[in-house]
Amino acid sequence: MKLGLLFNITAAERQQLAALPDLEVLDLPTANTDPKSWLDVDIIYGWDAFGDQLLQLPNNHLKWIQSISAGIDYMPLAAIKQQDILLTNTSGIHAEPIAEFVLGYLLAFARGILASTQAQGQHRWVSDQLRGQVFNLSHNTIAIFGTGHIGTRIAHYCHSFGMTTIGFNTAGHATPEFDATFASGANPPALQSAKFIVNTLPLTAKTEAFFDQAFFDQLTGHPLFINVGRGPSVDTAALQAALTQQQLAGAVLDVLPDEPLAPDSPLWDQPNLWISPHISGGFADYGAAAFAILFKNLQAYLADGQLTMNQVDLDKGY
Amino acid sequence: MKLGLLFNITAAERQQLAALPDLEVLDLPTANTDPKSWLDVDIIYGWDAFGDQLLQLPNNHLKWIQSISAGIDYMPLAAIKQQDILLTNTSGIHAEPIAEFVLGYLLAFARGILASTQAQGQHRWVSDQLRGQVFNLSHNTIAIFGTGHIGTRIAHYCHSFGMTTIGFNTAGHATPEFDATFASGANPPALQSAKFIVNTLPLTAKTEAFFDQAFFDQLTGHPLFINVGRGPSVDTAALQAALTQQQLAGAVLDVLPDEPLAPDSPLWDQPNLWISPHISGGFADYGAAAFAILFKNLQAYLADGQLTMNQVDLDKGY
Repeated sequence: MKLGLLFNITAAERQQLAALPDLEVLDLPTANTDPKSWLDVDIIYGWDAFGDQLLQLPNNHLKWIQSISAGIDYMPLAAIKQQDILLTNTSGIHAEPIAEFVLGYLLAFARGILASTQAQGQHRWVSDQLRGQVFNLSHNTIAIFGTGHIGTRIAHYCHSFGMTTIGFNTAGHATPEFDATFASGANPPALQSAKFIVNTLPLTAKTEAFFDQAFFDQLTGHPLFINVGRGPSVDTAALQAALTQQQLAGAVLDVLPDEPLAPDSPLWDQPNLWISPHISGGFADYGAAAFAILFKNLQAYLADGQLTMNQVDLDKGY
Repeated sequence: MKLGLLFNITAAERQQLAALPDLEVLDLPTANTDPKSWLDVDIIYGWDAFGDQLLQLPNNHLKWIQSISAGIDYMPLAAIKQQDILLTNTSGIHAEPIAEFVLGYLLAFARGILASTQAQGQHRWVSDQLRGQVFNLSHNTIAIFGTGHIGTRIAHYCHSFGMTTIGFNTAGHATPEFDATFASGANPPALQSAKFIVNTLPLTAKTEAFFDQAFFDQLTGHPLFINVGRGPSVDTAALQAALTQQQLAGAVLDVLPDEPLAPDSPLWDQPNLWISPHISGGFADYGAAAFAILFKNLQAYLADGQLTMNQVDLDKGY
């Protein structure tokens, strides 16, 4: 069995792979590597343009791709499905960092930290102004779109701060850590009056531009909106209008339809919009956590051709 | 009994006071009010320069002062003690807002929110740089100076994120929510290697300039230092040196020896120093929470001359 690397691994991880029986490892391709030299590769770890080229070769041997991300919307899903290739993601390892990231923005917004950081740049002591604005998270409601690993962890931390949590998923099924759940598209009063709204949904045909003018129009709680899902789930122009018209108190975008955001984008200077550069899921040991999923799946796959975790449903797209 | 107001109250609160027997309320003094006209005032709510003048009149009737703050270091404690005046504070109502504020900075620092906000001002997409720096709170240690209401609430929230909490108080007595406690001045390995250090101590002769060069010199964990206690507890020059010499990864000052901070202070532009304008304890309903303490004490005091809560030990200074 041949494993081709499209994501770098450590020396210790190479030794772990070397100890597996019947596995040959092909290192990262260089600019000169011909995709045809990878025709007999069975498994790929990671993904990039080289993978796209290999997939297009008619007689490739690909059987399984282990991505290094949770969302796999950037991959050629139609071709992967057509060629009967298995696809696994790293869903799960982002829950803790993204949930900490979201709670950080909730608190930084509510407790005046974002406003203080901006005022500091202007050498302004805005005590009287901020003391009348800052508030506590406790007793406020957060609406979370997506009740998977990430949404559930966010809800868990929100409960620690005495918040009410409502969740939205495909069918509205009940989920631990949520005080109430609804089907996506429902418009309950608790959503309308929520103080915080967070998107954690994967990008699919159903979620593209889900957060549009009609969505923002229904909100009366003057909430902070946070997107840690995928950029195209938000209609950026509608979001800007909602900010300008004070339908939203603010917005945080960690993901954008086009990344990196161009230096001359007007979004950088949009009042009450905070932009972070797609870092919510990152953490220092990310590579180790992703490799652990590859390795566990690899052991099972080499033994009996089965994958034990994180297989993507190619019809659903997550 | 006469109650003089040095802090504004709402119309509803005035009605509550009017319903108490044997109580006359004197409204906020104007610029023309002669302190001598308050000589027969028994109780004061709030404090300002007018109170200082009244206290200096030899035949004043003051018996009890209810401050609207937790720290009372700005009040003339020697004169209050000499005149046998009771002093109560609002300790307790700041625990939740300050603890949320501290957690906000922990998360905003660890998860790259502060760095993203600063980069946004320069239209910079710093994804690669930040992805290698951001980390999770979980499994990190926080050292909290002061294990009272505020420190305990901070420790509680830190436990929710899977952190280890160590506390410092006068005698090192055990306190719920702290995995270990030490006497202030102790230098255990857990302090040296802590990732976060927070000061919540009141300002007393013992805590003035407690956080000095010797304190910062002992730290090896490259921590973030946060002061939500009182400004003079930190030797600002020593803190700046510790930042410049990379002994500290960063610092957050919500309180400063001189407030408001002058627009030309070099502190505004000190790298890795975040300044907030003394807002950590604020929240929208602050006045109502402070009045609730006044009212509870007032009911007891009018009944039998006793105070039920929040009396300050004038020897300790808190």
